[in-house]
Amino acid sequence: MSEKIRVGVLGATGMVGQKFVSFLRDHPWFDLTWLGASDRSAGKPYREAASWRLGGVTPPHARDLMVHECKPSDDAPRLVFSAMDASVATEIERAFAQAGHIVVSNSRNHRMDDDVPLLVPEINADHLRLIPEQQKKRGWKGQIVTNPNCSTIVLVMALAPLKQFGIRRVMVTTMQAISGAGYPGVASMDINANVIPFIGGEEDKMERETQKILGDFLNHRVEPLAARVSAQCNRVPVVDGHTLCVSVEFENKPSESEIIGALRGWQGLPQRKGLPSAPPCPVIYMEEPDRPQPRRDVERENGMAVFIGRLRPCPVFDYKFVALGHNTVRGAAGAAVLNAELMHSEGWLAR
Amino acid sequence: MSEKIRVGVLGATGMVGQKFVSFLRDHPWFDLTWLGASDRSAGKPYREAASWRLGGVTPPHARDLMVHECKPSDDAPRLVFSAMDASVATEIERAFAQAGHIVVSNSRNHRMDDDVPLLVPEINADHLRLIPEQQKKRGWKGQIVTNPNCSTIVLVMALAPLKQFGIRRVMVTTMQAISGAGYPGVASMDINANVIPFIGGEEDKMERETQKILGDFLNHRVEPLAARVSAQCNRVPVVDGHTLCVSVEFENKPSESEIIGALRGWQGLPQRKGLPSAPPCPVIYMEEPDRPQPRRDVERENGMAVFIGRLRPCPVFDYKFVALGHNTVRGAAGAAVLNAELMHSEGWLAR
Amino acid sequence: MSEKIRVGVLGATGMVGQKFVSFLRDHPWFDLTWLGASDRSAGKPYREAASWRLGGVTPPHARDLMVHECKPSDDAPRLVFSAMDASVATEIERAFAQAGHIVVSNSRNHRMDDDVPLLVPEINADHLRLIPEQQKKRGWKGQIVTNPNCSTIVLVMALAPLKQFGIRRVMVTTMQAISGAGYPGVASMDINANVIPFIGGEEDKMERETQKILGDFLNHRVEPLAARVSAQCNRVPVVDGHTLCVSVEFENKPSESEIIGALRGWQGLPQRKGLPSAPPCPVIYMEEPDRPQPRRDVERENGMAVFIGRLRPCPVFDYKFVALGHNTVRGAAGAAVLNAELMHSEGWLAR
Amino acid sequence: MSEKIRVGVLGATGMVGQKFVSFLRDHPWFDLTWLGASDRSAGKPYREAASWRLGGVTPPHARDLMVHECKPSDDAPRLVFSAMDASVATEIERAFAQAGHIVVSNSRNHRMDDDVPLLVPEINADHLRLIPEQQKKRGWKGQIVTNPNCSTIVLVMALAPLKQFGIRRVMVTTMQAISGAGYPGVASMDINANVIPFIGGEEDKMERETQKILGDFLNHRVEPLAARVSAQCNRVPVVDGHTLCVSVEFENKPSESEIIGALRGWQGLPQRKGLPSAPPCPVIYMEEPDRPQPRRDVERENGMAVFIGRLRPCPVFDYKFVALGHNTVRGAAGAAVLNAELMHSEGWLAR
Repeated sequence: MSEKIRVGVLGATGMVGQKFVSFLRDHPWFDLTWLGASDRSAGKPYREAASWRLGGVTPPHARDLMVHECKPSDDAPRLVFSAMDASVATEIERAFAQAGHIVVSNSRNHRMDDDVPLLVPEINADHLRLIPEQQKKRGWKGQIVTNPNCSTIVLVMALAPLKQFGIRRVMVTTMQAISGAGYPGVASMDINANVIPFIGGEEDKMERETQKILGDFLNHRVEPLAARVSAQCNRVPVVDGHTLCVSVEFENKPSESEIIGALRGWQGLPQRKGLPSAPPCPVIYMEEPDRPQPRRDVERENGMAVFIGRLRPCPVFDYKFVALGHNTVRGAAGAAVLNAELMHSEGWLAR
Repeated sequence: MSEKIRVGVLGATGMVGQKFVSFLRDHPWFDLTWLGASDRSAGKPYREAASWRLGGVTPPHARDLMVHECKPSDDAPRLVFSAMDASVATEIERAFAQAGHIVVSNSRNHRMDDDVPLLVPEINADHLRLIPEQQKKRGWKGQIVTNPNCSTIVLVMALAPLKQFGIRRVMVTTMQAISGAGYPGVASMDINANVIPFIGGEEDKMERETQKILGDFLNHRVEPLAARVSAQCNRVPVVDGHTLCVSVEFENKPSESEIIGALRGWQGLPQRKGLPSAPPCPVIYMEEPDRPQPRRDVERENGMAVFIGRLRPCPVFDYKFVALGHNTVRGAAGAAVLNAELMHSEGWLAR
Repeated sequence: MSEKIRVGVLGATGMVGQKFVSFLRDHPWFDLTWLGASDRSAGKPYREAASWRLGGVTPPHARDLMVHECKPSDDAPRLVFSAMDASVATEIERAFAQAGHIVVSNSRNHRMDDDVPLLVPEINADHLRLIPEQQKKRGWKGQIVTNPNCSTIVLVMALAPLKQFGIRRVMVTTMQAISGAGYPGVASMDINANVIPFIGGEEDKMERETQKILGDFLNHRVEPLAARVSAQCNRVPVVDGHTLCVSVEFENKPSESEIIGALRGWQGLPQRKGLPSAPPCPVIYMEEPDRPQPRRDVERENGMAVFIGRLRPCPVFDYKFVALGHNTVRGAAGAAVLNAELMHSEGWLAR
Repeated sequence: MSEKIRVGVLGATGMVGQKFVSFLRDHPWFDLTWLGASDRSAGKPYREAASWRLGGVTPPHARDLMVHECKPSDDAPRLVFSAMDASVATEIERAFAQAGHIVVSNSRNHRMDDDVPLLVPEINADHLRLIPEQQKKRGWKGQIVTNPNCSTIVLVMALAPLKQFGIRRVMVTTMQAISGAGYPGVASMDINANVIPFIGGEEDKMERETQKILGDFLNHRVEPLAARVSAQCNRVPVVDGHTLCVSVEFENKPSESEIIGALRGWQGLPQRKGLPSAPPCPVIYMEEPDRPQPRRDVERENGMAVFIGRLRPCPVFDYKFVALGHNTVRGAAGAAVLNAELMHSEGWLAR
């Protein structure tokens, strides 16, 4: 226990912050010792500061932790996860990085900065090589590393194994869970028995983040993938799990069995290194004709795998398929924790 | 009252049959006098034969009608609407047409027959000219005319006004209401707080019916539109209303304002003739950033218009947008009734 | 048109305010000419001030009305409906009444004041005789009249016809729709596929308002009904319609047929006078074993009737049954408009 | 592994059967080796016979088990759990008991038989003493032991700790999850955004089973509790978890703290014996003002505890409160498995 790495969470009282708290329970490497939130919460024990919105009640390992202001301090652990709202994340994350903290962030603010890794450990571990550039350019001892948007991650986990066939064009429509909007998030009067065909900023994020994540690290920078991506994003009355309908056009059209083989055989560094939060198979292909489904599949593999099904020819592009991922686990807290695990195992936390 | 045209409904006890009964209430031209259903229901008054699944209770104009077997007879009106299940529709509809009945059908069975009009009155009234071919070829005094699948209709109502720009490729993902599956239809254990990314046969229907509906009547036959269409169909926990996310590539790319102008200015024969069930504007373009939405928009215009919104450039094709239509009204009972109104006003019911 | 009574709505931009706007469309007696809301909205046209949350879009009769501050003025009509939030209603309603306005309020603030009628036109029209007391005591030229809480109304409409049998004890559990909580109201993360067994203040309102409404006007005051009432209130994922499970103990236990007869035969002043918003039968008893149901029955009778079903013996009290009413129509806007119709027809608006 | 007790499941392909299969995975005492279902399924491997309706996919320990007909045979283990549909359970369970099997049944058919224990291990372990009566009377070497209906169990777990205060009258209204109706069960067209105020036979079951379970074993029979119970049962759009609103009148009215103390301090034989499926605390009292809630609490404690909250005075009886339990775990499969664990630990399996 004494050898665990102390970690903190910035924005610990929000929905994603609560998911971090929950996900870090009994983590074999990380010990959650510090929680940061708004001034309003600072000074209160977490059980009072955070109205627990997830299943059950405030977990025992965090109940009695005192909540701090989100300011760098000697108390705060070197490694902090950021679940901060985009309205405040830019400045606070910078302040922590400048003060020498390693900020592993789920916030969108710095994702598209040229010198910030938008990391998916199975896909682009080499993008971590942006960190020295970032530290040099900004004069920071610390650093910021980000994970993708909760719908982007599902798309890139499905596309990465297929990159070998030359991804040319991607059309994706999402059906996204309400938990993706935080708390109170989507009003029940808006989404009960309804579809909202709009999520502010989401489509642009999916289109651009995908290109960056699948891009190559060349000459100290990330060269975005040249593929064209178009996204249509919808909110549906589902609690957890974003479902995507994807059509892809390849440069070298593979066979269906080549695609399924590529998906099923895909392994990344987290799997090879056996990182604690890594799912044994990052992508699971399902043969059932009507799967994956969010309510039935999203909690499998601890929420860290992406589920794919219904691969079939597309009359317009080459293939179409359905993909599903857990938006608050693989799409948020779990993604950041896996990022930190990779960074630790690769020695980046020591820099 | 005495001058109204007597009409019947085949398959009157199912969900679509009930929607026909409901939609025909107080119809200015048609008088619902005859109901057909399975042997099990025959001989019972409708109030007993049909367990009413729509809002309220069995409407008074149908409560006491006696239910008949679905067999042609002198009792049955010449004009019959068919809401029959696909498992029995092929033979029964043929029998009625052969016996001289005009069968205006919502069933899928004959939609793709070469000599059967797949009619949308605003779009392809000239396809009715298949009827003489049909009667000659089959030796029928009667006829079968069909309306499209409940998700196809939303797509073609959105595309027809844009046909002038040369539709080359269409990518569509649907989020379909549970009422589209009839009763009992989708189990609540399957769809509550869930998405089912599969609807049997639906994608193929959307892809092929769209080409036929938008095709040209040439040389006594319908030449399908050459555009390529790819559909991904999903069930979502919405009661009524299919929502579609559409991307389109044109031969002659119009401007956004040309598209909106085309959608808003679109009028068909039903509007020009003032048919009783015709919406004043068959397509309504909404400016709100998050509309149309099924629960909020589907009942407007008596369920007979298609609502479109969110027109914006598509990074892969030319434009993308959202479309919504009422699956059991414009996508089923209302569509067939409008078909019959057009046929009456054009003189086809007299043939 | 010129002879219609001009009316206004205080708190016009909220959910209940929107329901007032919607309900007053094409009203035969009242002409909506004035809308009041917070300072933030004042000076804007209604279409901009109010983000329309009901079905469809901002209705044409209100789109271009300018929104005013909620202050008494010569511009404001004498008759104003109040849909104000409880946090501000006390003072503003008083100010309007003091300035000579007739405030027909849906807000809870003054409901239990001794000198304020808590009016249900079918039940206690004589409670309007509190108004002279109110005006005398408070020195007002205007007046305040209130309607019950959205769940209370369903209960009292069911109990009033049975008062003749001597209501001794009432146990009621509610399953309330999300629209009862306004907008944004209940977060979807709280209610999606869930039950919330708590609605702040609701149980106390049901228990006390019921006694006042069913009380007798004696000696210039209302003597509450002596019956004991216990309520348990729950929120369920339903859009509109509060469903109540009720058990009642009587002093003189009637037979089942006497109860059904009392419910079905019940008529009040609104029915006898043919008030525009009065349902022909204020209570509708349904024989079906599984009715009433909110989604199927709540919109019937324009939302103004209460539906009752499942009358059966109660092993603990005498009888139990299910009741349903439309919480934003009969439980809010429609209730207040019917109150004003009664007041007009009884001459109270002229005082 | 070799020392585990072999067990089977009758009716293994239905929803409750699947829950048994799922619940028995990795059970420390029982080894699932035999699955029985209808003739249609017999002879197929379970993965083909059962369309898996729970989360994830058919679990590995059952995938390849062959499905048998539900007939007693030497192959079938002595201990069988019954998840059979009520339409067939009576005869089949009798046949197994007659052939010497111990039938631990979730079916309702034999629950109210005078000589059949309706067992809740925390409450009435002594009712197992009916077994010798049953065997003698029926001439069986085997036996039938049952667990309560899925809503009854929640009520009796809440009442048992309070029995000491003399339960006189109980009023309960339920809000029951869709999983309680099996598969396909409730049609989504019936329950989506709706409440169904009727569940066939449920109210009678709750009223009578409660009296039997809380009754005393005297003179070789169970003397039902004299308390009067009235139930109103509703279906709501929740996946798992029945929520109950309860009002109770006592002979010796306790204080609130006495009640909470009784609930929290309650322990039964399963806790004292540390049975594998026993929750450490069978009843958990929650202080939060709006809990328990099905979606947030039902999966806690492995679904085996009952959650209670909102204890407060009742203006009609003494107290009212809210109770929640997992209908397919503590209300079905988990209940039966705990019954079998108790029977094993008490030596009844050896008889």
